[in-house]
Amino acid sequence: MKIFLASLDLAGTFVFAISGATVGVRQRLDLFGVLVLSIAAATAGGIMRDVLIGDVPPAALLDWRYLGTACLAGLIVFYRYSLVERFHHPVQIFDAAGLALFAVTGAWKALSFELAPVTAILLGMLTGIGGGMVRDILVAQIPVVLRAELYAVAALAGAAAVVIGDSLGWPQAPVLIAGALLSFGLRFVAIRFDWRLPIAGHREQ
Amino acid sequence: MKIFLASLDLAGTFVFAISGATVGVRQRLDLFGVLVLSIAAATAGGIMRDVLIGDVPPAALLDWRYLGTACLAGLIVFYRYSLVERFHHPVQIFDAAGLALFAVTGAWKALSFELAPVTAILLGMLTGIGGGMVRDILVAQIPVVLRAELYAVAALAGAAAVVIGDSLGWPQAPVLIAGALLSFGLRFVAIRFDWRLPIAGHREQ
Amino acid sequence: MKIFLASLDLAGTFVFAISGATVGVRQRLDLFGVLVLSIAAATAGGIMRDVLIGDVPPAALLDWRYLGTACLAGLIVFYRYSLVERFHHPVQIFDAAGLALFAVTGAWKALSFELAPVTAILLGMLTGIGGGMVRDILVAQIPVVLRAELYAVAALAGAAAVVIGDSLGWPQAPVLIAGALLSFGLRFVAIRFDWRLPIAGHREQ
Repeated sequence: MKIFLASLDLAGTFVFAISGATVGVRQRLDLFGVLVLSIAAATAGGIMRDVLIGDVPPAALLDWRYLGTACLAGLIVFYRYSLVERFHHPVQIFDAAGLALFAVTGAWKALSFELAPVTAILLGMLTGIGGGMVRDILVAQIPVVLRAELYAVAALAGAAAVVIGDSLGWPQAPVLIAGALLSFGLRFVAIRFDWRLPIAGHREQ
Repeated sequence: MKIFLASLDLAGTFVFAISGATVGVRQRLDLFGVLVLSIAAATAGGIMRDVLIGDVPPAALLDWRYLGTACLAGLIVFYRYSLVERFHHPVQIFDAAGLALFAVTGAWKALSFELAPVTAILLGMLTGIGGGMVRDILVAQIPVVLRAELYAVAALAGAAAVVIGDSLGWPQAPVLIAGALLSFGLRFVAIRFDWRLPIAGHREQ
Repeated sequence: MKIFLASLDLAGTFVFAISGATVGVRQRLDLFGVLVLSIAAATAGGIMRDVLIGDVPPAALLDWRYLGTACLAGLIVFYRYSLVERFHHPVQIFDAAGLALFAVTGAWKALSFELAPVTAILLGMLTGIGGGMVRDILVAQIPVVLRAELYAVAALAGAAAVVIGDSLGWPQAPVLIAGALLSFGLRFVAIRFDWRLPIAGHREQ
């Protein structure tokens, strides 16, 4: 089970790093800038989670595989950018995958530290949205969590699915996969159909 | 006393959430974006304080009342924006109230963890300025703490009043209220009369 | 040795505060804004390091000398801005000195907490790049670590030199000084000769 969880975490690291590197290439950063942005996007959510749980130093600093995975993804994007360009909305799609994977692993880690259900859901959500938030702040843009459709909600749904499944005593691996699919599915549909919520009426620009 | 302190903390959460939601509505975010910004503005200062004290997971993640209060404030602003618009400078006024409340509760919490007076004052100040800082960074603006008149100083004054009052053995509730009024008063006067300090002469733009 | 380490740390605090204050003056902030930016640039790297190590409250909040040093540097820049203007690229040069000093003291502190070599190198790098990152985010600019030549690499080199020197059992003070000189030297040469790495080819702007 520990290996399964680490695999999901590393998969989330990989896809978030791709989203970060893609933003970096578009911002015309050089190789080092692209790698820094890959690493920041890939590790920020997990580092936030670990700091808030009190599990320091964070796993992303103790385990070289996180850094290695993030650098590998960054190098692939930098030297093979055409592969990424084939996707529609590549930043959003890889970001959605990272959001889903980190929301479920974050919630799971919080549960394994015996935190209350609501706290575990919130920590899962934070783990999911943290990487994209730091990535966008670093390039001085308004983070996707504020602009995008069903973003925080998708992370919340994935984390909540894990916490509910766990409280019902369901087996862990299917619950994690179902939560991640639910979360990714919500975001994917929102991106695909460009779902938008109404905005509040107001007089000022 | 614990209830009194929690009330001040929740009041600070409420007013900071209003400031965050107001910024969100003005930035034309949708409902979820507005709620994320409310929550971020309302909880960031307290989360920073708790992480720096080592009291993790932070109260804002353990106690559902913080999240509930922030969401309530966000919903009110989103659906009744006209109520907020009646104020002159609504973001700044609610922000000033949050600054004052969090500066005193932050300093008080630091003292209750037996930290030294100077550290307690700094932590109070950070608790006060953290929410507005994160709110403004999230919408890619220069934070109010750098732009505004007497902002960090007002937080410092409120926190210092609490620490001095405590060291003199004065009763807690009046000291907290006096510190918050001092802090809010300083900011309010600065906003009202548009106090500005000189800027340094320099050649470059 | 402890005094030597504290001296390097305070020197890093001083030069990072100068870089922060210089950015503040150029952004036409008033005195308080300049001081907040000095303090943020000077203490953010060390605070990140201490939070990630779990050494809370951070040294920058416990020891008044950090705050005093940062304020002193901010006041000097504000009232004697012409002294700073004599340097070419003053922000980058003082930033490079802070980067180098904090990279070595950060790595050293991590080693003294018995963390693994790779973790110590990463924490050293983070301590070095943290101040400039927060300074630039606060004024809504893309941080120097993403834009500049050999920035994260210079911090990495300084931190790695300290960790390697320590593992070889070399004396501490010369190793720290050599690491800082290596790091500063790399950045200085990159600034001086405007070294740029290629950027990835891509179709979109």
